This record gives sequence, structure tokens and C-alpha cells, in this order.
Amino acid sequence: MKPVNIGIVGLGTVGGGALNLIRDNAEELSRRTGRTITVSHVGVRRPRPDLTALGIVVSADIMSVVQDPAVDIVVEVIGGITDARAVVMAAIANGKHVVTANKWLLAEHGNEIFAAAEAKGVHVAFEAAVAGGVPIIKVLREGLAANRIDWLAGIINGTGNFILTEMRDKGRDFEDVLVEAQALGYAEADPAFDVEGNDAAHKLTIMASLAFGVPLQFSKVFMEGITKLTRDDVAYAEELGFRIKHLGIARQSAKGIELRVHPTLIPQDRLIANVNGVKNAILVQSDPVGPTLYYGAGAGAGPTASAVVADVVDLVRALTAEKLHSVPHLAFMPHAMANTPILPMEEVVTAYYLRLQALDRPGVLADVTRILSQHGINIEAILQKPADDAAGTVPVIILTKLVVEREMNAAITELQALTEIVAPVTRIRMETLA
Amino acid sequence: MKPVNIGIVGLGTVGGGALNLIRDNAEELSRRTGRTITVSHVGVRRPRPDLTALGIVVSADIMSVVQDPAVDIVVEVIGGITDARAVVMAAIANGKHVVTANKWLLAEHGNEIFAAAEAKGVHVAFEAAVAGGVPIIKVLREGLAANRIDWLAGIINGTGNFILTEMRDKGRDFEDVLVEAQALGYAEADPAFDVEGNDAAHKLTIMASLAFGVPLQFSKVFMEGITKLTRDDVAYAEELGFRIKHLGIARQSAKGIELRVHPTLIPQDRLIANVNGVKNAILVQSDPVGPTLYYGAGAGAGPTASAVVADVVDLVRALTAEKLHSVPHLAFMPHAMANTPILPMEEVVTAYYLRLQALDRPGVLADVTRILSQHGINIEAILQKPADDAAGTVPVIILTKLVVEREMNAAITELQALTEIVAPVTRIRMETLA
Repeated sequence: MKPVNIGIVGLGTVGGGALNLIRDNAEELSRRTGRTITVSHVGVRRPRPDLTALGIVVSADIMSVVQDPAVDIVVEVIGGITDARAVVMAAIANGKHVVTANKWLLAEHGNEIFAAAEAKGVHVAFEAAVAGGVPIIKVLREGLAANRIDWLAGIINGTGNFILTEMRDKGRDFEDVLVEAQALGYAEADPAFDVEGNDAAHKLTIMASLAFGVPLQFSKVFMEGITKLTRDDVAYAEELGFRIKHLGIARQSAKGIELRVHPTLIPQDRLIANVNGVKNAILVQSDPVGPTLYYGAGAGAGPTASAVVADVVDLVRALTAEKLHSVPHLAFMPHAMANTPILPMEEVVTAYYLRLQALDRPGVLADVTRILSQHGINIEAILQKPADDAAGTVPVIILTKLVVEREMNAAITELQALTEIVAPVTRIRMETLA
Repeated sequence: MKPVNIGIVGLGTVGGGALNLIRDNAEELSRRTGRTITVSHVGVRRPRPDLTALGIVVSADIMSVVQDPAVDIVVEVIGGITDARAVVMAAIANGKHVVTANKWLLAEHGNEIFAAAEAKGVHVAFEAAVAGGVPIIKVLREGLAANRIDWLAGIINGTGNFILTEMRDKGRDFEDVLVEAQALGYAEADPAFDVEGNDAAHKLTIMASLAFGVPLQFSKVFMEGITKLTRDDVAYAEELGFRIKHLGIARQSAKGIELRVHPTLIPQDRLIANVNGVKNAILVQSDPVGPTLYYGAGAGAGPTASAVVADVVDLVRALTAEKLHSVPHLAFMPHAMANTPILPMEEVVTAYYLRLQALDRPGVLADVTRILSQHGINIEAILQKPADDAAGTVPVIILTKLVVEREMNAAITELQALTEIVAPVTRIRMETLA
């Protein structure tokens, strides 16, 4: 079967990320879709002889990408709304499917764009428009399709959340952190879009339509930014058991739909209150599933490209397979399953928590550490508690660094054989996670 | 267009939940799919005259559901593996699509089942098999399709997590909490499936296949339960900055794939360390998106039915629409969009945090509380801080109960007019969330 040809309009952070991802993960994408996916044409102002050398057509005129008969799917990642709208509408008119990361465009012109796509029989996909790599569009549209959604509340601007996290953790002032966020490249080109709430309002507009089945209505979103928050407010809220987050909230109440972006005090013990730094999270309350939460990176080349290319995979699967089999049962094509071995537990490498119940006498710790050392097991921490029973034995807790399970099994056998160790050794594995 | 007919095999907690959900949300489901979805036939041992009266065929012989020519989609929710396998294989042989919540069946016989489904050209959907209402199957298979998955770690047995949460929060013993979990109806019929890790291992088997593109290999999962954990271990781990969770971990390492279920120490500040009670969460580390997390109810009639009916919606959409348009752009069919009004902010009801900078003189608080009271605003908490500037003014922080924004706006205008209030009133909205 012939490759599916992708045209990318815009090669900034997101476009470059998508190009690299399609090329780097080509084999994996083919295992998932049964097709070869090729970037055949890019629209970018500056010449890119490196791409031309790879056989990719490079056009300074972005419109030539959407007019290229060889292009099957147009990825619009130039941003802004004027050129982006022209590109998307022309792509639709030319019968091409579109993938866009452009929340501003959709919040302002999505109704027109989706109507045109439906009239023309093409699809406009936009997973990357909200919360970057977190697949919240798919969740709202498909995963929660059986639910009536009551409300959703999201941390959907990473820059704003980074600023609030720094203000709380380090007692810093808003202005000070904003300058750092810009230096780190987190802030949008116009930082007002982050801190005044426009960016969050664009994303909220899109999520509210998916949640409640209403047209996109960006102009009706209430917006209040975080520019006036003081570190005193952050500290007082904390003292009262609350944390301040800049939330986008959409709620269906008896009288109508609430659409609002504003700083919000929420109880500290909520999971979403503990989403820190540039991360995004969306909490959805719906019936009958109850609260569910979706968390991850909301911006950046990799996360956004992850969402753009997931949309490409969806389209390629739909273009290729019978409609009931567009998604393989086990995610990969049956003929492309791997025979990677499953490791026996003895070969797994982890860190460990050990608890030894030892006689309270000199030399015990020396024996224990000698045995661990002989098995190449390094100690991360030791905690010896006071004697806790009439027999005068003491619990010794040891955290180890990474070691292969086989060595740990052997070490535990030897530890167990020590006369000073009076109860079975407790061993619990440890993981750092992320 | 004729209705899509659903046959449900098994009317226990999950089957009853699915039946109710399809009936209660019928209009919403039709707005999302463009079709009427009807439960036409149920297989259940006891007679159900209440269902017969609704025009639903009720068969004591479950096989007659899968043999009914009018049934388009079979929902298998009898549990166990012997009868369930017979039902699913017969449904496939009869050319019917299948939705199942049965993780045990898929972990043990999924390879055979999916091969049969592919040969016959039908689809077997199983979102409900892992983490109940959290759409983790769709996330792994579609949402993260552009990623190489490095590892995933999940709290995927709610009973086990409830027990560990109680042991930590209340210093209770394992046995004691297990008895309560059974009384509360959390535990599986055979509690060993929860606390020894079988249930988690079934789910991990399924997720690992989707993540790494390997066949289902339940027999190779390493399993260690939580039955030997003591409250001392839980407390020592806490003292060292860790929390113990019963995790299912699948990791692709250089040598092969790790599949393991065991108690695990993880740093307290990780988001997944703060998933408490019967909730489930899955943390996925993949490239390029980085860590993402999915959280929600992992069991119960409502959450499981949410996933079962989401699968039904997927199938109905695929059976109905052109393949590129099976999912409407904005989740609902274009002709079925609602014109629910968007509420002006003045009509939104929330609680508030107010910070007033007041002259430190008698009677100020009386004036403030009088104004709030006149607008029907009840006070939840007051925090008055010591004078914080040379001018001798004091910050007064007030948390209010719920009130409509219009009244709060009016109250703030009056507060601002008090001569004792020397700076603009700060107002931040508050939400309880979930």
C-alpha cells in the first residue's frame, strides 16, 4: 500500500517536533497503523536544504502545501489565526484532512471550520490544542461518551501553574517568576495570553463544547488573570488549608453553562491541588463514572508532537482499515506483534527496603553490611529504631540503591542465616517513578 | 435508521449498571451517535418480569442471547472464565461484536479471542477490563499511539489501595481493614484476587500488551500480595519519605519486558503516591510526551458501566457513520448540538476568599460583617493577622459560603466605600472540586 503523505505547515517548535517524531518513530507507527507515514512536503519561510536532501519538498509559500495533490493530511502548526485559518480552510476545500494544534484558531473559528469539514467529508483533528500530550480531547469525546458531564476544572496553562508553584514554594513575587518563565521559554509569545487567561479560555471553550454539546463560544468566557495575586494571598490560602490554582472551569448548572477562567482556592488535599510546575491536569466530574483526572505535560515540542502524531495515527488508521478495525485489538497490527522476552524476576533491577529484626548486640550491623557489600549492594539509608519488645531486639531498616534481584535474594538468604537476625527478613521493592 | 440492539449476558452489578445507563442516558447517547441504542435481550438466570414488561427478551439460557439474530452487540458481564469464554467465542462465531469487562478472561484467553474476532471481522472491546471508568485502554491504544512507552505503573486494584490507605492513615492492621473492605463490598468474590495480586496481574497483562505490542502473557507476571505488610513497615516507610502502594509495573528494559505486581515504596511527593482509598491511577512514562497520569474509580456499577457503554458508543459510531466521521468533531452530532445559554458571571454561584486591608480600630469587623450579612453572604472562616505595616493597618481574610456573584459584587462595592478599608478588596473564588 502506498505511504500516507503528510504536509506540515510551520516548522517551529511544534512542527519540528512532529517532523522528528514521524521520522524517528516510523517503524513503531507502521506497526500501529499498517502503513508507512511520510512527511512529503513542508511549508516554511526559510530554505531547509537538510530537508530537501531527504526528499522532502520545502515551500516558502505555505499554500503550496495544501495545494499539493500528493499530500493526504495537512498538519497546521504555524499558530496565530489569520494565516492558520486560510491554510485550514484551503486544505478542507481541497479535500484534505487536517491536524491542528491551534486552540486560538478553533476557539474563535472552530464552528465555521468544523461545518466546512463536515460539508466536504474531511476530518479536522485537534488533540494537541488542549493540554498538549494529555489525550483529553479523546477522553471527552470517546472515553467518557457514556457520561453526562457535570463539570470540569483544568490547570490548562503550564506557565501560569509554574508561576503559582514558585510563588508558593519559594515565597517569590509574581513579576519575578514571570521574568524567569519567559527566560525559560515557557511563556507564550505574548505573555498576556498565559497570565491573563486567554490561552486557558481558548482551551476551556473547546473542552466545554465537547463536554456539553454546545457550539464554541469563546467570547462568553469570563477571564481573570493571575497578575494581581500576591505572595501574601498565596500564603494566607495555604494557612487556611487551600492552594491557589489558575483554573478553567466549565459547569452545567440548572440555569445554564458556566465558562470561567480565574484564580481559585481549592482544598490542599485534592489531587489536582498537587499538580505543580508546568504540568497540566484536567479533573472531570461526570455521571456515572464520578471524578476522573488526566495529567501530563501541556506544552513543549515533544508533548505537543505526541498529540499531533496521535491524530495522524487516528486518521491513517481510519483511511486504511475497515471501519470496525481501524484500531487493532492490542494496539499494534497482529502481524507486527513483537516477541520481546518477559524477564524472570531474578533479572529485574530495583532498589529495596529491608527490615531486619536483630538482637541488640554489637557487631550485628557490621555483619549485615558486610553481606550486602559482598553482593554489590550499596546502602542508601539506614534507620535503626529503639528496642521494641521484651526480648530486646531492634528493627533495622535499610534502603538500598539499585541491584539485580538475584543478588538481593542471595543476600537475604545469608542475612536470614545470621543468628542475630531473629525474624524473617522483610523486603519491599522501591521505585522512583516520575 | 433502525436501533442498534444490545444483548447483555449477566445482570449483576456491572450488567445492571450498563442496562440502567443505556436506558437512562438514551437521549444523550443518541445525540452522540445519531442512533437509538436499545437493550433488546438479556441473559440472566432468574426471571425478570420487570424487564419483560419493558419489551426486553429475558432468557435463562445465556446462549440464546448470542444466538438472537436481532442482537448486534453482545455485552459479556457474567465474569468468571468458563461460561464467559463460551459466550464470547459463540458471539464471535455468530458475527456479533462483543463488549466485555472481563480482565481475567482476556488475560488468560485474549490471544485466542482476538484472533477469532479478527478472522471473523468483528470487534471485541474491553475498556471496562482495566481501571473501570478510567479510559486507559483508549489512552494506550490511541491517545499515546505516537509514543514509545518506557514503563507504566498502576494502582489497579481499589480494594488493595483502600487497605493500604487505611493502614497508613489510621495505623490499622491488614486483617482488620480487609474484613471492613469485604463488608463494604469492595473485595472481589475471592478476596485473594485482590490482596494476592491476581486481579492487578490480569490488568497489567492487558496494559503491557497494548504498551509494548506483545502477546498477552499472564503466566509470566511476577506477583506478590500485600498480606504480609505490617503497619510498622507502612510507618517506617512514611518516616523515610515514602509511601507503600501495591503497584502493577510493566517496563521495557534493554534485556526484555518486566511484568510485576508487588508492594512498592514510592516517594511521598509523587502524584500517584497521593491516590487514596478505592481509586485507581495509572502513570505512564513514554517518549516524547513524558509522564502522564490517569485517575478515577476503578470498580463499581457506575464506573464500570461507563466504560462498557463507552465501548458500545464506539461500536455504534463505527457501525453507523462513514469511517472518517465515526466520531463527531465536537463529540455530539452536528444536528444535535444544544443551545444551552452561557451564564453571565453575575449569575454564577461560588464561595469566596476576601482579603481586606483595614485600619486597626474597633468596629471595623462589625461594619464588614453587617455588609456581608445584608447581601445574604454567610461567613465560613475569618483570619485576622497582626498589623503588618507602619500605618498600623491589618489584613483581614474572610472565607464565605456559597453566594451568587452579583451579591458579592455589590457587597465588595460597599466594603470598598468604608473609610476603614484602605486598599482595594482582594476577591478570589473558591471551589471544593472532588
